[in-house]
Amino acid sequence: TKEAVIRAMMGVLIFLGYVLLSLFMYAIMRRVMVPQKLHIKPVHLYFHPECQTVGGAADCPFPKAEFLLTMDKRSASIFKMSLTVYPLPPSLFSLSLLSPCFSLSLLPSSSYPQLLSSGQYYHISLQLQAPESPVNAEVGVFMVNITLYTTGQQFLSTSARPAMVKYKSFLLRTLSTIVFAVPLLLGVWSQEQELNVPLYEAYYEPYGDGTISATVSVLNPHVQLYSSTLTIDANFGGLTYYLYQWPVTMTVIVVVSIFISLCTCTLVLWVRDVLRDFDTRRR
Amino acid sequence: TKEAVIRAMMGVLIFLGYVLLSLFMYAIMRRVMVPQKLHIKPVHLYFHPECQTVGGAADCPFPKAEFLLTMDKRSASIFKMSLTVYPLPPSLFSLSLLSPCFSLSLLPSSSYPQLLSSGQYYHISLQLQAPESPVNAEVGVFMVNITLYTTGQQFLSTSARPAMVKYKSFLLRTLSTIVFAVPLLLGVWSQEQELNVPLYEAYYEPYGDGTISATVSVLNPHVQLYSSTLTIDANFGGLTYYLYQWPVTMTVIVVVSIFISLCTCTLVLWVRDVLRDFDTRRR
Amino acid sequence: TKEAVIRAMMGVLIFLGYVLLSLFMYAIMRRVMVPQKLHIKPVHLYFHPECQTVGGAADCPFPKAEFLLTMDKRSASIFKMSLTVYPLPPSLFSLSLLSPCFSLSLLPSSSYPQLLSSGQYYHISLQLQAPESPVNAEVGVFMVNITLYTTGQQFLSTSARPAMVKYKSFLLRTLSTIVFAVPLLLGVWSQEQELNVPLYEAYYEPYGDGTISATVSVLNPHVQLYSSTLTIDANFGGLTYYLYQWPVTMTVIVVVSIFISLCTCTLVLWVRDVLRDFDTRRR
Repeated sequence: TKEAVIRAMMGVLIFLGYVLLSLFMYAIMRRVMVPQKLHIKPVHLYFHPECQTVGGAADCPFPKAEFLLTMDKRSASIFKMSLTVYPLPPSLFSLSLLSPCFSLSLLPSSSYPQLLSSGQYYHISLQLQAPESPVNAEVGVFMVNITLYTTGQQFLSTSARPAMVKYKSFLLRTLSTIVFAVPLLLGVWSQEQELNVPLYEAYYEPYGDGTISATVSVLNPHVQLYSSTLTIDANFGGLTYYLYQWPVTMTVIVVVSIFISLCTCTLVLWVRDVLRDFDTRRR
Repeated sequence: TKEAVIRAMMGVLIFLGYVLLSLFMYAIMRRVMVPQKLHIKPVHLYFHPECQTVGGAADCPFPKAEFLLTMDKRSASIFKMSLTVYPLPPSLFSLSLLSPCFSLSLLPSSSYPQLLSSGQYYHISLQLQAPESPVNAEVGVFMVNITLYTTGQQFLSTSARPAMVKYKSFLLRTLSTIVFAVPLLLGVWSQEQELNVPLYEAYYEPYGDGTISATVSVLNPHVQLYSSTLTIDANFGGLTYYLYQWPVTMTVIVVVSIFISLCTCTLVLWVRDVLRDFDTRRR
Repeated sequence: TKEAVIRAMMGVLIFLGYVLLSLFMYAIMRRVMVPQKLHIKPVHLYFHPECQTVGGAADCPFPKAEFLLTMDKRSASIFKMSLTVYPLPPSLFSLSLLSPCFSLSLLPSSSYPQLLSSGQYYHISLQLQAPESPVNAEVGVFMVNITLYTTGQQFLSTSARPAMVKYKSFLLRTLSTIVFAVPLLLGVWSQEQELNVPLYEAYYEPYGDGTISATVSVLNPHVQLYSSTLTIDANFGGLTYYLYQWPVTMTVIVVVSIFISLCTCTLVLWVRDVLRDFDTRRR
């Protein structure tokens, strides 16, 4: 009976260990498969001073901003400290998921990690704060351009989309100033518009050389802008979508399935051992 | 019993001495690790007179200000009189913190101490007081540039950000003049705007050759400005953040931990001595 | 007993003498260490006539004023009659303060004494009375320059700061004219602004060759100014600050401490004499 008690305890220990292992594996999997959904980056456009002088040259460079699409020093260091988990190609991962005995490989990082995750689709858009000034009204439609680069400033992808400060007639502007006089005078409201310019509906972040930097330019030197922001929003699909959308349900399903596969794996090994034992005894 | 009394007094004296030492060490640590959070420096831009004459040249130098980012003579002398503690690299400091027996090294100062502390992130922004004049409305977007230099006027870092006096339609300006007539006539209110231009969100002050001087320039000679101020605000992170945010709690924690480590250190040395004594006696 | 009475009288006399001496020394110290706080000097700018004609030359010299920063004949003579005390370097002075037996050295003056005291920080600013004219509105930002010279017109220091007549819209000007019509018509009020241009926040007056003369110039020939005044305000620091800010308290403290040090000095000398006397008697 003493042996039975020890065996029962061993069983309980193994059970608990497998539960913990399942939870841990699920945590890693979640970390790897569900990247950060939203990135908001301020875009600091450089308006060339030679165009801004009164009666500036006709052919002057467009307002432009260059920036990195990597995590900055501080958040990168926090990231590294917590866990250096890098996105794996889903083929590799699903293989390891399907295989009953797991093999998780974590790639070490050489430089700062990228903002975008490989194999993921992103919706990229630019938000522009533009005054309802006569200058902007005169400018009319203008193009907004984004170009994405990989390591070594190599071209990756580009997109150009039109934008325009919404037209408001003199009467409408007068009416709106009178109606919103109180918030305007209090400084709560202002005579500006937020233009949302979608640049990519579904930008696919490639494997291998990923997106490292970007340039945003407004293809009209006379546009007046207060500020601009780039929004990068991940479009989750497949398993990632379900993991993001129904976190509780998916946690239960995945943990249970990992646990079952672990148990099956153990059982198979145990049966093999028993059979081998049986064979050697018979000889 | 006489010896016992002397021993008890010695113990009390050592205890008090260690408490004082802990407090002193904490004070030094605080001084070194928590630099001044906010620096506000007036920026006196030099508007070149050849551009300000009626019908000035089209290509004239931009308004510019050069200034030192070191403590001035007076505050520096006060600083030196109180304590010449210089920021140490955190690695060095944490090492000395971790070692049970402390080794604090204070670097002597050769010249005036810098405003910025090494290994610290700073948010740098420029505040501009600009009139709502037709000239500024015509100028539209203009760039504000900051360049930071180390010893020997060597380039360290630069940043350029757009700014613009907020557009107000004629009707809104008229309304606001009528509504705010009383404070405007009394001189309490004025027809101006304060523009806040963030120049760096997180400027990292390097170790070694630090920031000694800076130049700020407005990349449009026609902008009208009443005054401008540079605000440098430290973004505390890690231990410094906790030391700044919860001063009381951290004081207790740190003083107690220093005290315990001092006691442990003493105990270890005492035990070693006792053992050695024991050895020599036995021989 | 006669001798005792004489001795008591001697003691009272010495006591009174020492009190008077303390007061006198304090008065000298105060005179030396606390210079005149405020100096206001009218600045008479010379507007070159060739620039002021309608349609004046584009490149004409700037309005300029040269003046001495010394006391004028009349106040200087009064000063000389009262006491020709010159500022000493603080190191020297504190030494003489610390030594139990005083040694005060007063330097004789060769020429008129300077306005500014050596080793003192000064806030220097220029007040400009400018009309709210369309010419000044068109001028916009203009620079104000001050250059300080020592003996022989040798350059000492310079500073240039921007100034601008505050923008007022047409409506505001109209309103203000209507509202203030009565005082304007009575000549009590006028359509002008006082611009306060800080030129130095902390000008340090050096030892040795001090500031003798200055030139103030407005770096725009088209600015219209009614009058201008230079204000030099001492920023007291250290002992001087306390002497200025709490005159009564400091008087008591300093007089008492001088008195005590005088008494100590006398006592030491007396004890030495007594001992010497004792020695000689014994031989």
